[in-house]
Amino acid sequence: MRVALDAMGGDYAPVPIVQGAVLAVQADPELHVVLVGDQAQVEPLLASAQAVRERLEICHASQVIGMDESPALAFRKKPDNSISRCWQLLQQRKVNAIVGAGHTGAMVAGGFMMRLFLKGVRRPGIATLMPTQQGLSVLLDVGANVHPKPEHLYQYGVMGAIFAKHILQRDKPKIGLLNIGSEEDKGNELAKETQDLFRSSPLKDQFIGNVEGRDIHRGVCEVIVTEGFVGNVVLKVCEGLFEFIMKVVGKELLSTLKSELQLGQLALQNILKRYDYDELGGAPLLGVDGICIICHGSSKERAIASAIAVAAKYARSNLNDLIVKELSSGGQQV
Amino acid sequence: MRVALDAMGGDYAPVPIVQGAVLAVQADPELHVVLVGDQAQVEPLLASAQAVRERLEICHASQVIGMDESPALAFRKKPDNSISRCWQLLQQRKVNAIVGAGHTGAMVAGGFMMRLFLKGVRRPGIATLMPTQQGLSVLLDVGANVHPKPEHLYQYGVMGAIFAKHILQRDKPKIGLLNIGSEEDKGNELAKETQDLFRSSPLKDQFIGNVEGRDIHRGVCEVIVTEGFVGNVVLKVCEGLFEFIMKVVGKELLSTLKSELQLGQLALQNILKRYDYDELGGAPLLGVDGICIICHGSSKERAIASAIAVAAKYARSNLNDLIVKELSSGGQQV
Repeated sequence: MRVALDAMGGDYAPVPIVQGAVLAVQADPELHVVLVGDQAQVEPLLASAQAVRERLEICHASQVIGMDESPALAFRKKPDNSISRCWQLLQQRKVNAIVGAGHTGAMVAGGFMMRLFLKGVRRPGIATLMPTQQGLSVLLDVGANVHPKPEHLYQYGVMGAIFAKHILQRDKPKIGLLNIGSEEDKGNELAKETQDLFRSSPLKDQFIGNVEGRDIHRGVCEVIVTEGFVGNVVLKVCEGLFEFIMKVVGKELLSTLKSELQLGQLALQNILKRYDYDELGGAPLLGVDGICIICHGSSKERAIASAIAVAAKYARSNLNDLIVKELSSGGQQV
Repeated sequence: MRVALDAMGGDYAPVPIVQGAVLAVQADPELHVVLVGDQAQVEPLLASAQAVRERLEICHASQVIGMDESPALAFRKKPDNSISRCWQLLQQRKVNAIVGAGHTGAMVAGGFMMRLFLKGVRRPGIATLMPTQQGLSVLLDVGANVHPKPEHLYQYGVMGAIFAKHILQRDKPKIGLLNIGSEEDKGNELAKETQDLFRSSPLKDQFIGNVEGRDIHRGVCEVIVTEGFVGNVVLKVCEGLFEFIMKVVGKELLSTLKSELQLGQLALQNILKRYDYDELGGAPLLGVDGICIICHGSSKERAIASAIAVAAKYARSNLNDLIVKELSSGGQQV
């Protein structure tokens, strides 16, 4: 199993990114990681990892796409950037999966420019796991596609349902369309046309219709389909609100405790760790031919190691074969 | 000060709605509430409120718009519905403000159909208060306008800034445009064109550009402008996530406490009460000629009483005069 990692991508790159790769290969003896980035910077960071050094390769890339660059311009100006090099390794089948914590738009654009899509997929979408009152759900798209057509959203439903069934082990996952009311005639044209597609599809029994924002964390369905703009805002609102509430709980609840303060602090830290969006370890770009995991820009060692492990797990599953089969058959029940 | 209340609107109407009106007039000796709804149902509920009975009027309306009805159809089929009657009282200047917890779409459509807009306003928008790490912010639109034009979003910025300054007492409020990245070229066409409008307007010094979902609860700006679809989803996601995290804290943090369990429970209840979206007491539809407060469907006595008090407060302020003045002057700094 071979995974390419953008060693230069992320707010704290390259140090914790490379350390994440070391942790990942230490944990999985079958795993090789190709560190894509500036050899002069990456090489010295591997000095202390001699025991696993033979499963860590470096693929030199002299350029880095900055977080504030426009992807289209950057790809033209910087042909030797680390993100493009990762995608090339995937296209050439030199790796099974790629992982990056750099510019999300550029990670997505890299795959879109190569049209490295699975057969039948119109537009890949980023899926993210959402903790809910009923376990994990999958929300997609969270930012790959800000101008989706109804058919794209329908395909997100198909791919999300396969993901929920085979990765989250949820049998007959229910699919909901994120909208501003539960009634059929609610929302914009995109929402109305997407509903029609689902209702006339083989997935109609799994499609529960519109769901509202509050239904996500109630776990009303295992797959929540939405356009990239809305999904991205939702994901980041959750991150900000979680951070805010945890601060409020820390300040207003823990401060009332005395003898049991330490117990409370420990429990709060456990909650933070378990639900922190930084820790969930990356979101798959579903629909590409290969595995691509996009990490949060603020990812450190553990998040990167977890994303690499997830990439290897997905690459070992037959997720992509199932997606191709499902789309070619017009979408049977999954 | 006269406020019309849709006595039939809300998941639990009419009992807690009418009780909310009673609480409101008990708390404010200058206040008259016109209860709009079925006289036969409303009248008996006032039997125990003799002390304030003369400040509670009933305006009979024989029909109710159900939560699952299409507003356009419902207005045609049910001309004597309680929502239309509220708007008519406002149009005829028989009341200063209206309050309702019924069908949000119908509350908005009632005002839109009458074109009861302030001079210069293109499309009213629903504003909602968001608790943040830096105090309250205002997010708009949260559902009145799902097909906004850039100019509508610009006007939401103007109205939101006046609201933040004069109601929230925030001096020189900063305005942010909700988007999927902080860079200027991010997002859809609407976002890009709206940015151009702000940057070439008299509000340009208060406009901080794009903000992301996670910035809302960090309190990066006092006014967050977005389209109705996105705002509505955000508001309801916050409601669902808050509910979810509070359950997690209750289960995983409080359960570790023994001798100080009661202290912890009390603190948690205080947080729930203060930040519960059900308790924030209604959202103003900014831009209408008069005051209109839209409440959560699940509102009970306290939420309704609080919304009526808020309606009276806004009606007493010169918020609408300021909005008209601001828009006619092309939007000076507020």
